[in-house]
Amino acid sequence: MKSGRHFLQIPGPTNVPDRILRAIAQPTIDHRGPAFAELGRETLAGLQRVFQTTGAVVMYPCSGTGAWEAAFVNTLSPGDTVLMVETGQFATLWRDLAVRLGLHVDFIPSDWRHGVDAAAIAAKLSADKARVIKAVAVVHNETSTGVTSNIPAVRRAMDESGHPALLFVDAVSSLGAIDYRHEEWRVDVTISSSQKGMMLPPGMGFNAIGANALAASASARLPRAYWDWQPMLRDNPAGFFPTTPAINLLFGLREAVRMLEEEGLANVFARHKRFAEATRRAVAGWGLELWAACPNEYSSALTAVVMPEGHDADALRKVILERFDMSLGAGLGRLKGRVFRIGHLGDFNDLMLAGTLAGVEMGLAAAEVPFIRGGVTAALDYLALPAGSVRL
Amino acid sequence: MKSGRHFLQIPGPTNVPDRILRAIAQPTIDHRGPAFAELGRETLAGLQRVFQTTGAVVMYPCSGTGAWEAAFVNTLSPGDTVLMVETGQFATLWRDLAVRLGLHVDFIPSDWRHGVDAAAIAAKLSADKARVIKAVAVVHNETSTGVTSNIPAVRRAMDESGHPALLFVDAVSSLGAIDYRHEEWRVDVTISSSQKGMMLPPGMGFNAIGANALAASASARLPRAYWDWQPMLRDNPAGFFPTTPAINLLFGLREAVRMLEEEGLANVFARHKRFAEATRRAVAGWGLELWAACPNEYSSALTAVVMPEGHDADALRKVILERFDMSLGAGLGRLKGRVFRIGHLGDFNDLMLAGTLAGVEMGLAAAEVPFIRGGVTAALDYLALPAGSVRL
Amino acid sequence: MKSGRHFLQIPGPTNVPDRILRAIAQPTIDHRGPAFAELGRETLAGLQRVFQTTGAVVMYPCSGTGAWEAAFVNTLSPGDTVLMVETGQFATLWRDLAVRLGLHVDFIPSDWRHGVDAAAIAAKLSADKARVIKAVAVVHNETSTGVTSNIPAVRRAMDESGHPALLFVDAVSSLGAIDYRHEEWRVDVTISSSQKGMMLPPGMGFNAIGANALAASASARLPRAYWDWQPMLRDNPAGFFPTTPAINLLFGLREAVRMLEEEGLANVFARHKRFAEATRRAVAGWGLELWAACPNEYSSALTAVVMPEGHDADALRKVILERFDMSLGAGLGRLKGRVFRIGHLGDFNDLMLAGTLAGVEMGLAAAEVPFIRGGVTAALDYLALPAGSVRL
Amino acid sequence: MKSGRHFLQIPGPTNVPDRILRAIAQPTIDHRGPAFAELGRETLAGLQRVFQTTGAVVMYPCSGTGAWEAAFVNTLSPGDTVLMVETGQFATLWRDLAVRLGLHVDFIPSDWRHGVDAAAIAAKLSADKARVIKAVAVVHNETSTGVTSNIPAVRRAMDESGHPALLFVDAVSSLGAIDYRHEEWRVDVTISSSQKGMMLPPGMGFNAIGANALAASASARLPRAYWDWQPMLRDNPAGFFPTTPAINLLFGLREAVRMLEEEGLANVFARHKRFAEATRRAVAGWGLELWAACPNEYSSALTAVVMPEGHDADALRKVILERFDMSLGAGLGRLKGRVFRIGHLGDFNDLMLAGTLAGVEMGLAAAEVPFIRGGVTAALDYLALPAGSVRL
Repeated sequence: MKSGRHFLQIPGPTNVPDRILRAIAQPTIDHRGPAFAELGRETLAGLQRVFQTTGAVVMYPCSGTGAWEAAFVNTLSPGDTVLMVETGQFATLWRDLAVRLGLHVDFIPSDWRHGVDAAAIAAKLSADKARVIKAVAVVHNETSTGVTSNIPAVRRAMDESGHPALLFVDAVSSLGAIDYRHEEWRVDVTISSSQKGMMLPPGMGFNAIGANALAASASARLPRAYWDWQPMLRDNPAGFFPTTPAINLLFGLREAVRMLEEEGLANVFARHKRFAEATRRAVAGWGLELWAACPNEYSSALTAVVMPEGHDADALRKVILERFDMSLGAGLGRLKGRVFRIGHLGDFNDLMLAGTLAGVEMGLAAAEVPFIRGGVTAALDYLALPAGSVRL
Repeated sequence: MKSGRHFLQIPGPTNVPDRILRAIAQPTIDHRGPAFAELGRETLAGLQRVFQTTGAVVMYPCSGTGAWEAAFVNTLSPGDTVLMVETGQFATLWRDLAVRLGLHVDFIPSDWRHGVDAAAIAAKLSADKARVIKAVAVVHNETSTGVTSNIPAVRRAMDESGHPALLFVDAVSSLGAIDYRHEEWRVDVTISSSQKGMMLPPGMGFNAIGANALAASASARLPRAYWDWQPMLRDNPAGFFPTTPAINLLFGLREAVRMLEEEGLANVFARHKRFAEATRRAVAGWGLELWAACPNEYSSALTAVVMPEGHDADALRKVILERFDMSLGAGLGRLKGRVFRIGHLGDFNDLMLAGTLAGVEMGLAAAEVPFIRGGVTAALDYLALPAGSVRL
Repeated sequence: MKSGRHFLQIPGPTNVPDRILRAIAQPTIDHRGPAFAELGRETLAGLQRVFQTTGAVVMYPCSGTGAWEAAFVNTLSPGDTVLMVETGQFATLWRDLAVRLGLHVDFIPSDWRHGVDAAAIAAKLSADKARVIKAVAVVHNETSTGVTSNIPAVRRAMDESGHPALLFVDAVSSLGAIDYRHEEWRVDVTISSSQKGMMLPPGMGFNAIGANALAASASARLPRAYWDWQPMLRDNPAGFFPTTPAINLLFGLREAVRMLEEEGLANVFARHKRFAEATRRAVAGWGLELWAACPNEYSSALTAVVMPEGHDADALRKVILERFDMSLGAGLGRLKGRVFRIGHLGDFNDLMLAGTLAGVEMGLAAAEVPFIRGGVTAALDYLALPAGSVRL
Repeated sequence: MKSGRHFLQIPGPTNVPDRILRAIAQPTIDHRGPAFAELGRETLAGLQRVFQTTGAVVMYPCSGTGAWEAAFVNTLSPGDTVLMVETGQFATLWRDLAVRLGLHVDFIPSDWRHGVDAAAIAAKLSADKARVIKAVAVVHNETSTGVTSNIPAVRRAMDESGHPALLFVDAVSSLGAIDYRHEEWRVDVTISSSQKGMMLPPGMGFNAIGANALAASASARLPRAYWDWQPMLRDNPAGFFPTTPAINLLFGLREAVRMLEEEGLANVFARHKRFAEATRRAVAGWGLELWAACPNEYSSALTAVVMPEGHDADALRKVILERFDMSLGAGLGRLKGRVFRIGHLGDFNDLMLAGTLAGVEMGLAAAEVPFIRGGVTAALDYLALPAGSVRL
């Protein structure tokens, strides 16, 4: 029996605010009636503002994986080539999904410690005289590594190559946490889901759709039914959905958008930046190493920390869960046991972060991992700075 | 501003009990941690009992439509032929989905007032000497018509024809409301979802999978990734899922299974039968016509009522919604405006039914539809009978 | 195991709307902090509007009984005489409370089927040349009988007698259900509580305080501490309370006032009138007798029904609870077993009322009480009338 | 707009666990029906176990102040003398209440930094040859100072003096947090309430009643009605209450007792001890002074910290609330501005405490209060110790 609140510091699902939990506990309503129509329209419009787009956004009852699938099956045909970059475990899983769907993937390898190399994209596209590549698909914020990629740079590289490939971006763990601009950055399809910066329980996936992607969907031949955008785009303007939507999650989504907008998206992003900087100062204070290699690619949503040689991250996580009732993210795939990940996104504040970092610090001690004790203090020194003096 | 509780008497989503609403409002937990493992195992085992199977049941964050798609893409290959029966709008939509996925559908026409004709199935299968037909796919309880089909009879017809086609059954609106026996009836894949007899908000779809379907999945060539059973079947025994599950709906599912089992599945089915009989007596009392043609095919989950000539069901529904704050089901597809549907499934009792029927009766008067006033009285006469004397 | 929602048709506590249940489930806050100050001020101002007064309203964590006590101990001295009228069980309990507090009660007897006889009050006051009577205390809506009293008539009688006694009114089961005007009717102290027309769980009692009562409190000598108005009146303007308030019920109260005002108080009262009339038509339809003797004293909040000779109301209530999962009010005190009470106040609508009356009708049959079957039909005929044609 | 959870670190109301918030959000039920009877019996029996008594425990809808009043009016008569000790603000308020009720109070003065001096009690009682003193009333855990009193020592002093006075103990902020044994310590009336260690919202007060107190109630002549134990003791064994109970708080109380017993009362008390020790180490680490003078009187429920000369505690609290969204307890009465109080009781864990102390440390910096930065580190060093090595 644990006392007090669990610290859910995995990089998603995140701590769902009680305001949203209460919202999703409202009685389910008729998804074909006028009250729902209002809910549908309001949440779709809200999602547009969060994606920073005036174009269409569709949502499905699904996980982020489903939203990845939706992006592909609506725009591509069997055997099409997709250029992807191995930024981490989620990029790898997305690649696997593409292959299973019958796509050919040109997968640019990486050491998982860096974001997408826009120059490598440019080189591939320039070399593709036959225009075999139909799409470039990259992850904005690699949840497995805490490394972000520069999407505008990728867009520029694509533009400069004059290649017509579509640009798909996974913003699953950045939406609502890290500034993401679907329209300004001219992304063709952005994929995201409910359970990270959107502060909702898992169960909904999103596609923000640009005009070129929509055009591509007219000729795309991958079989699609559940994921088909067309019935969605037909019914959504009236606030309805072709199949039964996840009504209670929509109640939560309405509340989530309100919360993000009450705080102001710019403030939300600044807050996440601040938490990330404080966390990195703690890591430095402990004498531990960040997994992310480049400061300009540090994630505001999570921080992956390298375990000292000879120590197992999962053993540490187990101690922290049992002794301090906190869940941290595991190292995934090739990082299993080598890193642990601290989620600091979503509905979160300074003192929750302080508790989180204290849990890591005490856990390191309890698990007998070699470290220096100054991490929490370093973080607090940073968090205690006057708001105006925040240095990033 | 409405006072009191809305009457959500569409045939799904149904009235979610407050006990389940509170369950889904629990704080989201780590879907890779030990507390979740227990939740995953408990809900999967519970679903097996509700499907009346000892075989695998998988669940997805999706609507019922997604669960239809999952059944097909895991077992069939492009161009495969499926034998389906046009029992109503949902059978038709399922057919459309099959076609979109690249399957060929042999669609046995019907007047929508009858269930599946097992003899017609038998004839088709016997005639199929080349074994072109790979699957028979039928709807157990047609939500659009209130007509059920005799699944054991279909199974017998298939057995007697000696044809190896798989049997797929849509139990979306029967699971948890009408006796359904996946294993005893030797169904190969049963499709269902959360928001009907399972009393949950929408957002989860289920497949119960038989051994032959599992075998078929080894050679099935429709592209699949999100819907692939294999990663599910690999991870589920430990209580986990390959992608992020709809955690909060699983909290609700645990509670739903508990509620069904506290009442006892047999009692749940008997209760639904009783509500349906009372509703039909009301319809008869009003001098109106049931849409369902045959008493042995009447649905326990919903009742579709034919509007008198010259009267529009949607106009009636609008009056009832505005005056009496009750949602009824619309006529779908070719039944638009011609029938209205009364949902009497899920978390429901005698007095909620009485209120529902009173709302219809008063609505008929308010909408100036010709009818006889005795419907509610006839229903009450039936409901007031001693429990032991229930005649069905 | 019961399915569906319980019908809580006692005359309080009433069916708490889920919107209020969610409000009271908000995390408790610091009762000395700025967020609470806003809550305190908003709820106190809201209560004033509901009591229809610009004067002070105080609230306590307590039941209605506590609010009775508060009214007396703040205004009277040991041995003071209070003129009360035996309108029913609650008037009698209030009398008992007065006696226990050391007051002398002149208790005008009654048959419990009539409201307060203003002429009798006038006679008593006129005869009281010595001005021994310090207060007149009457119940606006007798929850035990479904009989209301004409408070303006009582006020007029008091005015005409020229007697300076204070007027105390119990509006426990009328506030938020039946038009009640503390200020216009010049009541000195009105007593009410949370769990009836205010739609909250029990746990809060209210006093609306007039200027004369406040003046009386300066010289009143009954010992008081918890109930003392003075510290309340000192702290309330800033939104605070001298002792820890029932914070979560205040969250609910804020929501309750919003709901009442969204509907509009006049509409709320009209709605209750309509439910009461429909209920009385059902009673007449069953061939049963109303306990209340005079139409102009019928309660809009509840209806007490006389059992046919030789039949026990509690046996009927037991059958209805067990068979139909509905709670009805028992006959209290001298009415035990002789009447049952149907609560039709609070968060309630036509179809809930229809379900309620159906439960009574089926219960009468199940309990083998002699009755005519037409009650529900009579009520529905009335409820189905166009809103504009409501006849009261 | 604040993000994340508020830190409610006043010494009550405490952070209500979401499990209890969901419990109190259950639909209100009939307080005269069988479901309530079970709830009433279960919660009363649970309270007995928490008070560690086999005797009667009664509960009222009221604040702790109401429960104080209940203890007095049931056992004493006008003009009776009560011996009280000025341990802090709550002892002083309790004294004031006694005086307002017409009791005479012999108030032993104190510096607020010490608990009750049992020898002083003994001296008073021995000197009271005329047996004028009817009761000794002391506070177990002074919420205003973080100083506890040794109740067994007081009991021994009373026993040794051979004086028949009753012993009243305020356990408002110790019940459920600090080991308290009503029966073993032979306390006559223990007063407590819902919103501290019991983890509920405010709104319920308790009296645990010993045999001598019950005997005294037979002759006590203070007027009483709402607070009268007798109707409670008459109705409670069947699970009922003489007036409408705070039904939804009882749902919460049932859950609270379950939580305390799942953890085990001994573990609950040990957990609180550990939090208090960690907090004191933080205070020492900051170079600040504890208000409590004697280690054997340190409270496990809260810690009052002395502000450095020339610095205002309320200014610090304001900074902490605004910058770090944490509520701390103010200095009360003569301590206003001089101390701040850290609540560390109720539903609380190591990381919440770490966040709390971090908030204080950052707040001290932000408010420019002179302090040493090592407080949080000192606390974490202690909390990180293996459970087995806890030193108190």
